[in-house]
Amino acid sequence: MSNTIHKRLNALRSFMEEKGLHAFIIPTTDSHLSEYPALHWAAREWISGFTGSAGTVVVTREKAGLWTDSRYFLQAETELEGSGVDLFKDGLPTTPTMEEWLGSELGRGESVGIDGNVYAAKEAFNLSHKLNMKGLHLISDYDPFASIWHDRPAIPTNPIFVLPEKYTGEAASKKIARICDIIEKQGAESLLVAALDTIAWIFNIRGNDVKCNPVAVSYAYISRKETVLFIDPKKLTAETSDYLKSEDVTIAEYSKIYDYVAKIQTSVCLDSNKVTFSLYNTIPSDNRIIDIPSPADLMKSIKNETEIQGFKNAMERDGVALVRFFMWLEKAIPQGGVTEIMIPQKLVEYRSQQDNFVGESFDTISGYGPNGAIVHYHVSEKSSLEVKAEGFLLIDSGAQYFDGTTDITRTVAVGPLSEQMKKDYTMVLKGHIDLATAIFPQGTRGSQLDILARRTMWDNGINYLHGTGHGIGHFLNVHEGPQNIRMNENPTTMLVGMVTSNEPGLYRAGQYGIRTENLILTQHETTTEFGDFYSFKTLTLCPIDTTPVIKEMLTAEEISWLNEYHKFVYDRLSPLLTEDEKRWLKDKTNEI
Amino acid sequence: MSNTIHKRLNALRSFMEEKGLHAFIIPTTDSHLSEYPALHWAAREWISGFTGSAGTVVVTREKAGLWTDSRYFLQAETELEGSGVDLFKDGLPTTPTMEEWLGSELGRGESVGIDGNVYAAKEAFNLSHKLNMKGLHLISDYDPFASIWHDRPAIPTNPIFVLPEKYTGEAASKKIARICDIIEKQGAESLLVAALDTIAWIFNIRGNDVKCNPVAVSYAYISRKETVLFIDPKKLTAETSDYLKSEDVTIAEYSKIYDYVAKIQTSVCLDSNKVTFSLYNTIPSDNRIIDIPSPADLMKSIKNETEIQGFKNAMERDGVALVRFFMWLEKAIPQGGVTEIMIPQKLVEYRSQQDNFVGESFDTISGYGPNGAIVHYHVSEKSSLEVKAEGFLLIDSGAQYFDGTTDITRTVAVGPLSEQMKKDYTMVLKGHIDLATAIFPQGTRGSQLDILARRTMWDNGINYLHGTGHGIGHFLNVHEGPQNIRMNENPTTMLVGMVTSNEPGLYRAGQYGIRTENLILTQHETTTEFGDFYSFKTLTLCPIDTTPVIKEMLTAEEISWLNEYHKFVYDRLSPLLTEDEKRWLKDKTNEI
Repeated sequence: MSNTIHKRLNALRSFMEEKGLHAFIIPTTDSHLSEYPALHWAAREWISGFTGSAGTVVVTREKAGLWTDSRYFLQAETELEGSGVDLFKDGLPTTPTMEEWLGSELGRGESVGIDGNVYAAKEAFNLSHKLNMKGLHLISDYDPFASIWHDRPAIPTNPIFVLPEKYTGEAASKKIARICDIIEKQGAESLLVAALDTIAWIFNIRGNDVKCNPVAVSYAYISRKETVLFIDPKKLTAETSDYLKSEDVTIAEYSKIYDYVAKIQTSVCLDSNKVTFSLYNTIPSDNRIIDIPSPADLMKSIKNETEIQGFKNAMERDGVALVRFFMWLEKAIPQGGVTEIMIPQKLVEYRSQQDNFVGESFDTISGYGPNGAIVHYHVSEKSSLEVKAEGFLLIDSGAQYFDGTTDITRTVAVGPLSEQMKKDYTMVLKGHIDLATAIFPQGTRGSQLDILARRTMWDNGINYLHGTGHGIGHFLNVHEGPQNIRMNENPTTMLVGMVTSNEPGLYRAGQYGIRTENLILTQHETTTEFGDFYSFKTLTLCPIDTTPVIKEMLTAEEISWLNEYHKFVYDRLSPLLTEDEKRWLKDKTNEI
Repeated sequence: MSNTIHKRLNALRSFMEEKGLHAFIIPTTDSHLSEYPALHWAAREWISGFTGSAGTVVVTREKAGLWTDSRYFLQAETELEGSGVDLFKDGLPTTPTMEEWLGSELGRGESVGIDGNVYAAKEAFNLSHKLNMKGLHLISDYDPFASIWHDRPAIPTNPIFVLPEKYTGEAASKKIARICDIIEKQGAESLLVAALDTIAWIFNIRGNDVKCNPVAVSYAYISRKETVLFIDPKKLTAETSDYLKSEDVTIAEYSKIYDYVAKIQTSVCLDSNKVTFSLYNTIPSDNRIIDIPSPADLMKSIKNETEIQGFKNAMERDGVALVRFFMWLEKAIPQGGVTEIMIPQKLVEYRSQQDNFVGESFDTISGYGPNGAIVHYHVSEKSSLEVKAEGFLLIDSGAQYFDGTTDITRTVAVGPLSEQMKKDYTMVLKGHIDLATAIFPQGTRGSQLDILARRTMWDNGINYLHGTGHGIGHFLNVHEGPQNIRMNENPTTMLVGMVTSNEPGLYRAGQYGIRTENLILTQHETTTEFGDFYSFKTLTLCPIDTTPVIKEMLTAEEISWLNEYHKFVYDRLSPLLTEDEKRWLKDKTNEI
């Protein structure tokens, strides 16, 4: 592999030399600023061999570097070995930023290239500013991979399908009308959208262009006068075309977005974090641009009654599959031969027996013992451990159903545990419960609530460096904004109808990892003289392993929550189970 | 009064007409963007009759309005009655912003005036932008009060004094050298400071120009080449001049700041929230401006060992005065005739008997019964209630000592309480303790910790709308930044050495108010494999009334904290007390 990477880097360097570029930056995203891009846009992986979901490669004439975060330090070290790409550990105080490094490697007046088609406008403006401060120029005109990546996959042409209103709860034309109302209040006449999940939500369409994310490569322009979906006609059937027409949507070729935008004469609303530099710069300069967080993203995050009911139904089916999976696991481990890599397959096997199942919502994380401590562990044939009858097994998995998306983590004791393991497990559970039971006034942000999941750990000098919760799409991306629950500030407030994950964790490097994750729905709790108060309703239906719990560490309220949650799981799932399964579930949901 | 206000408004309107202005905005600040300005700058009070510490008056040719926040709704209603100034309740969804209101009142192309000398640069830029969007122009050239306010107080010329190093712990010249190191890292060669408390801290000087705030009207320009203090020479004695010279500080006339800044040729660091629009615009346009949160403010917030010891010493003396005050109060109330307005006087009487006492650090809030529910209540002869032997009395007070500043709130049961009162009191106490006992990783912001003080209340559908904590100066302003503990985001992290208040409250309009406030010092707690963790050390020394406490509502840890705090108060104060006082304190600090 490292030989292949050297050849590719050389090809890029020849390209750079030809165009007079002294460095080239390759991010992980696509023309839609997706977290998970289709293979056509996987240039960062192709050029470096690094397979993680986050990271940026910078190539100069002499050197190359990958900047990635702590989730991927170990994986990147392994994957980059001998490639000629150096690892820069993002977030460490001693690591230079990409711009600082470029400042030290290049001379004043030299040029740094990006492909403006795969760079968020805001980031490119910031990059350009920082480079200018170091006397460097940003050139955004070239896509070197169009010429040097010979077997580059094409932009996908998979067909889309219409998600019927019985699942979406609102016609596309009504969503479009609501969007127009909202952007008009911001002084805009139109909305430009490149984000694939947002487009799928607005038009009630789903696709199959990105693994695990049921989206279709496309752009959208929305206004009272005309709403246009830019999409490859190969993706459309007569049925989908008719449907879109019936919703007053004009269809145009995917690549025509640039010509169209170049001619618009209107005040355009867009989110410069979610539109590429190239597309942004295509807007004629005399148009007013209203650059705000995407109003459609906020609308999408607030699930309607149909979507919420769909989530609940999907949770029941997912819960049944999980009961069957964990029953299998419990029997199989003592017999020996269960490996980490079997687990994703088994989960898909059980889930695929359920109605409305479409596929996984992300690659299952199945980490036994020390592998559980690697937060974004991706099991391979090489890394896969046998699950022995001791310690913890961490499984983070999820599915796409037509009526909802699931995402659940359970950590199970597969045998004897140390006292520290039990204490750690109970701390994670306390954090999970303390967030699940939060009551908070309207206007509260996730960053205010985050500490509830961490406080017990902090009291013990422990922390986890990932977020506590992310938004989740309705039969859409498993990670969506705009809300989240993290240590970092995010101005979005938690609104009634949002579905978010609740997933505190604790990781002891080289030993084990623990995470307990459910999905929670924001709901109205009460109205008092002090205003409206919200709370969370847990949606996920699956027992939480109680064998590691140190009961004395829980408060009476926490014990009640756990017992009530387990009663709720049993009541909802048992009617769908065989007698054998019921007995197993009864045992797993017993009061502590 | 309302007749006087009408006359003043008419004088302003004549001025506006003469200058072609269609509206004029009068904020509450001064040329140094002080929270509490010297009387010379109290134009907003003069023009409207509203005496609150926050609010903005907008006058058009026909109308006038005051925008103020919920703390002052009741007070403003009373004070504005008949004045011709309408109250606009800031923060309510139905209240238009000042700019929206101006947009609806004025016609396109009309002009809005401000005095650029009393408007933060950043706010004026934002205002100008918002007005432009409504087709209005901002004119910042006039100070109407220079001509229409005939008996306007002069800018104060009170003498300054040097605060010796035994209190400050660091020479001015060393602070200046540290500032230069920091701004150089930001690419700046000089720092421009208008904030009076920052100047007092940098130069180790104190003044007497603003009630309760020991600051002196001045500007400062700091650089390696030259550091200049712009101050009225009347304020200097031979001693202070000599001292400043010995620290390599050049002295210039206060008003010369504009001439000086107009000639600088350097990259200037400033905080556009803390420098006026006029001063900002005086900087020649070819200078690079590095506009960042004031590095000197962050340095000031991190107290050194000498300052911390000073705080601790001041707390002992303040605690002794408070013991004597509360002993007096306890005896006096049953005898009848104690009124709210007597309390500030009595507090000053006891505090002034202590060494190093300089004065109050703010106007004492002394609210009995329903007056306790008015968050920023300022007792007057008219409003002052008699304190009867029932319910709650809330007292928020503080003092300036040469070695530290205090700020403490106690709510005491002066007689029988209802069950709701006890429950509310205990909830506030739980919040206070939960924040006081927080442990958190380095890098944590106040907004993340704020919920600890509120969670029990939120669980019960209750909230308070003020911040939980503010920074506090060392023998300086009782409110200082950059850190705070609030629901609102503030990017400043809590750093070791910061002193902050911990003051949750609960207010039942028309019934009573409860607040319990101590000052807390951020300290290093532990270092683990997960990093550095910090905690708080409570500095304030005064018993917390335990008679309203419902013990069953407290956790074992909360009870321990309360008992340990009371032991700490007794141990520290008792050596300074008479036998009688010791007995009283012993009784008040008994374990619960």
